[in-house]
Amino acid sequence: MTRGLPVLFLGVDGGGSGCRVALARADGTVLARAERGPANVTSDFDGALANLRAAIHEALSAAGLDESALAACRAHAGLAGVVTRSDADRVRAALPPARWTVTDDRPTALAGALGGQDGALICVGTGSFLISRRGAALRTIGGWGFQLSDQGSGAWLGRALLEETLLAHDGLAAFTDLTRAVLIDFGGAPDRIVAFAGQAGPQDYARLARKLTEAAAAGDDTGRAIMARGASYLTRALAALDLAGNAPLCLSGGLGPSYAPYLSPPLAARLRAPAGTALDGALLLAGQDGAP
Amino acid sequence: MTRGLPVLFLGVDGGGSGCRVALARADGTVLARAERGPANVTSDFDGALANLRAAIHEALSAAGLDESALAACRAHAGLAGVVTRSDADRVRAALPPARWTVTDDRPTALAGALGGQDGALICVGTGSFLISRRGAALRTIGGWGFQLSDQGSGAWLGRALLEETLLAHDGLAAFTDLTRAVLIDFGGAPDRIVAFAGQAGPQDYARLARKLTEAAAAGDDTGRAIMARGASYLTRALAALDLAGNAPLCLSGGLGPSYAPYLSPPLAARLRAPAGTALDGALLLAGQDGAP
Repeated sequence: MTRGLPVLFLGVDGGGSGCRVALARADGTVLARAERGPANVTSDFDGALANLRAAIHEALSAAGLDESALAACRAHAGLAGVVTRSDADRVRAALPPARWTVTDDRPTALAGALGGQDGALICVGTGSFLISRRGAALRTIGGWGFQLSDQGSGAWLGRALLEETLLAHDGLAAFTDLTRAVLIDFGGAPDRIVAFAGQAGPQDYARLARKLTEAAAAGDDTGRAIMARGASYLTRALAALDLAGNAPLCLSGGLGPSYAPYLSPPLAARLRAPAGTALDGALLLAGQDGAP
Repeated sequence: MTRGLPVLFLGVDGGGSGCRVALARADGTVLARAERGPANVTSDFDGALANLRAAIHEALSAAGLDESALAACRAHAGLAGVVTRSDADRVRAALPPARWTVTDDRPTALAGALGGQDGALICVGTGSFLISRRGAALRTIGGWGFQLSDQGSGAWLGRALLEETLLAHDGLAAFTDLTRAVLIDFGGAPDRIVAFAGQAGPQDYARLARKLTEAAAAGDDTGRAIMARGASYLTRALAALDLAGNAPLCLSGGLGPSYAPYLSPPLAARLRAPAGTALDGALLLAGQDGAP
């Protein structure tokens, strides 16, 4: 414990869409929150740091404090784009002085979802990854990006849907309402699907995923088969995480909950709603990390 | 039949690596051959046509003829990049005047391989496609490109190999000699594999395929599993072509023959070596097409 000054916790959650900061007392009472623009340190280091500093300053001001209060802060930042230890060191050196720990944004998401408990977070949005805690050990699976990984993700689902549509067009699979609708969306012309794929990035493919999850929920055979393939990957990944048999599981991200009906009953029984956000997780890790 | 002049057949085969021309008498005797640079009419129309004209001119000269002899020619060009009927019309209008038929390069490959008989050609190189003849009806499957199609192709095999290597790294699959060797080739660092994939086009992935087919032939489990997946696609596609039960099949392209051991015995029994090249096929189609 820091002598003389009351200990404060500072949590920071940052990614491509914005950064969020919360300042709390050691008892958990949140004193102030602030939010600013994107903070992906790989795509724009200086811009990310400027947004982070502004958000931290705003949270301190809102709590009636100035930057000198940071001396009494234990702080954790979970930031998209922190891949290596040297990324973390570089960020730490550029942040206002405090007792920082810096990680990528997956440990904070996990800590927020499970409140620091053992278990796993299955995050499925445009991309996908799994992260687990077992005691002190964190383990991450997937998240290597759209070209070779991110199975089950929105981008993966959208691409699989176009692939199945071409297979149906070629006569290798029966058309279902879903693949018929996709082909119509492309003017009935497979070469327009091919032209789309020549330009498409993960976000473009992921925009097709909602149509797939809705069709699957309504019973479309192709939709259900693709979802089942995604769920099969997530199930293999959960097995590889080698958790205790009753460890809780959270499905997060825009598409995570869509997989609940595709998990086996024993896995489904372990699902619980995320307890909190990645910002909550950052506050929690601020209290746990780097204690003297 | 053209009156007055003896009928000649002119065959043209053109693609990204070069174009080939053959001039033959109606009895099949080849009078001259010529070869020039690339002739993909999608990627470089004017360059393709210049190379085609030069090759045709050279073949005529070698046979002691000038361009007036084209009036007595039935000619067929099979050219990569001819996708629509209007592509074919545009090429026909730009070629020296003769009795041309113009198609993409798949019908010529099929006619060359099967000597004009009913059957199917399974072509597996960097990309993949199947084409069949049943009577007058040609049918094509696949070949929609690397992002969504071309299952079993070199690019598809290479990408699957990297995907399996990341799965092994993440603990979802056992490493085999093959995936271990791939990871070592990338310095043991999965993020280098990811960086490669961020830049890689189909040719880049396809360069990894040879390693996979060799490992599979030597019994590597991962290699064999990926090849079996590719063969499963080719088998489904053959079924969709709906040929007579004894129709002959040819495996062509740099990787086609690698699939022979993965086909079921009834399919394998129908395999035969291609009878000729796409240029032979173009000559054959010159004799069949557009007869008055």
